[in-house]
Amino acid sequence: MNLSGLKFSKMHGLGNDYVVINEFNEEVIPENEKSRFSIDVCKRGFSIGADGVIFICPATDNGEIKFRIFNADGSEAEMCGNGIRCFSKYVYDNDIIKKDKINVETLGGLKKVEITVDEKNKSLSKFFKVNMGLSTFKTSEIPMVASVDEFLDEVLIVNDEEIAMTTVSVGNPHAVIFTENTNFSDLSSVNLDIYGPAIENHEAFPHRINVHFVEIISKDEIKVITWERGAGFTYACGTGATSCVLSGFKLGILDKNVLVHLPGGNLEIEVYKKDDKLGAFMKGEAELVFNGEMV
Amino acid sequence: MNLSGLKFSKMHGLGNDYVVINEFNEEVIPENEKSRFSIDVCKRGFSIGADGVIFICPATDNGEIKFRIFNADGSEAEMCGNGIRCFSKYVYDNDIIKKDKINVETLGGLKKVEITVDEKNKSLSKFFKVNMGLSTFKTSEIPMVASVDEFLDEVLIVNDEEIAMTTVSVGNPHAVIFTENTNFSDLSSVNLDIYGPAIENHEAFPHRINVHFVEIISKDEIKVITWERGAGFTYACGTGATSCVLSGFKLGILDKNVLVHLPGGNLEIEVYKKDDKLGAFMKGEAELVFNGEMV
Repeated sequence: MNLSGLKFSKMHGLGNDYVVINEFNEEVIPENEKSRFSIDVCKRGFSIGADGVIFICPATDNGEIKFRIFNADGSEAEMCGNGIRCFSKYVYDNDIIKKDKINVETLGGLKKVEITVDEKNKSLSKFFKVNMGLSTFKTSEIPMVASVDEFLDEVLIVNDEEIAMTTVSVGNPHAVIFTENTNFSDLSSVNLDIYGPAIENHEAFPHRINVHFVEIISKDEIKVITWERGAGFTYACGTGATSCVLSGFKLGILDKNVLVHLPGGNLEIEVYKKDDKLGAFMKGEAELVFNGEMV
Repeated sequence: MNLSGLKFSKMHGLGNDYVVINEFNEEVIPENEKSRFSIDVCKRGFSIGADGVIFICPATDNGEIKFRIFNADGSEAEMCGNGIRCFSKYVYDNDIIKKDKINVETLGGLKKVEITVDEKNKSLSKFFKVNMGLSTFKTSEIPMVASVDEFLDEVLIVNDEEIAMTTVSVGNPHAVIFTENTNFSDLSSVNLDIYGPAIENHEAFPHRINVHFVEIISKDEIKVITWERGAGFTYACGTGATSCVLSGFKLGILDKNVLVHLPGGNLEIEVYKKDDKLGAFMKGEAELVFNGEMV
């Protein structure tokens, strides 16, 4: 694939980084080459290097614009919390859609993004609030092999050790471990390289699971470290931060508005109730690092 | 540090990647900020992301131009085989010095680089041949704690296992293991994650050591995988490829011109004799990936 002259932007959300290609007015990478393109340009060392590629596309359904995201392995993802914030910043700052609420089409359905401008430069956006949708705690839906309907602060045996955790799905599955409910004194005493893969691949989780250790600072402030399914340590996981707050709220140990400190930065999670379920908004920043042109 | 508007190029040599800053005509990053700048822009995920930063600088001594390279940890390196090829490509292709032989000042001394043009586009350079200088096999100079003056295909006990290796220094120390002299049938049977750190940190090497496993295809063609001191697996190590060929030549199992296959690509190594010592030329490619401008 000859990429000479291709213009792109490089953005990140809490350290998850993306190559951004603007296809709002015209297709830049042909549909049948998007997967191969993503594999090629994400390769660190040899090309641009990124966690994924975001394509800014015109709407085709009931939204105003379409978000598409491909992983570094060439697969197309349904949604990505860090990615959609980068997408929204690009769309707002480049005047593609200059509104403080944007209806974004994603493979995971329509997402409403609320945009807060940068007080120093009002033509630029600063914070992005995304409705992450509804969650489920039902073990059958996560999926999790368990004798209980919901696994709320229950003990799982991991490497002959009893670890209390809560499991939840927000479209993808998460295991949330509050250090105060375990033998870990705080996050620094957690060996993520040992517990992460042991829980991710535990026989209780047929689709494997994302693993989060949470230290509670107060009812509205927590610290989280994450072992991402298939990826290992990650600077920030948007659905993970959401799942931690939803779990803490469900257990009655966290309020509905919580500031989450992740290794890559901060997210604000706001829980809401709809029918019998809990949903959440995620609010955070996104950064444009540089604009580039392939040689 | 406000980097807004900063122009840079991103290059790589066999997968080792660099941010390149042209300071030939004027200083872009103040001297006392170069270290901090390198740490900042090399950070993958959050910034450009690279193994190091190359500064194109005017000569200050007896060369025509000066090569400076900072690692991602902010330290300045003496020399870098993959880096100086990228440097030379930038200098030639951008008409800074349009000659087929360039005398390059480095912290590791004056280096002569020979440039071969791309036959398809003669204004661009293609291959770069660098004199890597003289080597030493003396254990006292490597340094290595050993009862012999030179450690040539001698056995070292690693994790209770006998492994035959040759040690050499080309400015930095290397342990070279030919799989045919060991129990390894080929490179695929070598567990680099186990043997790499065990040899790197072996008590025989007070300054630790780079570790290479070599599979001989013929007397003029080898395959190499490398465990880099302080870095782990690497796509390509220029001094390592050089050390492997020097060791094989010294042992009489390789010719003086050898094609080296590394995970990141190929290098050609040519051994020469000077006084009582062996030296080597390294020849390989370099790639310009994209030009960028910080936002």
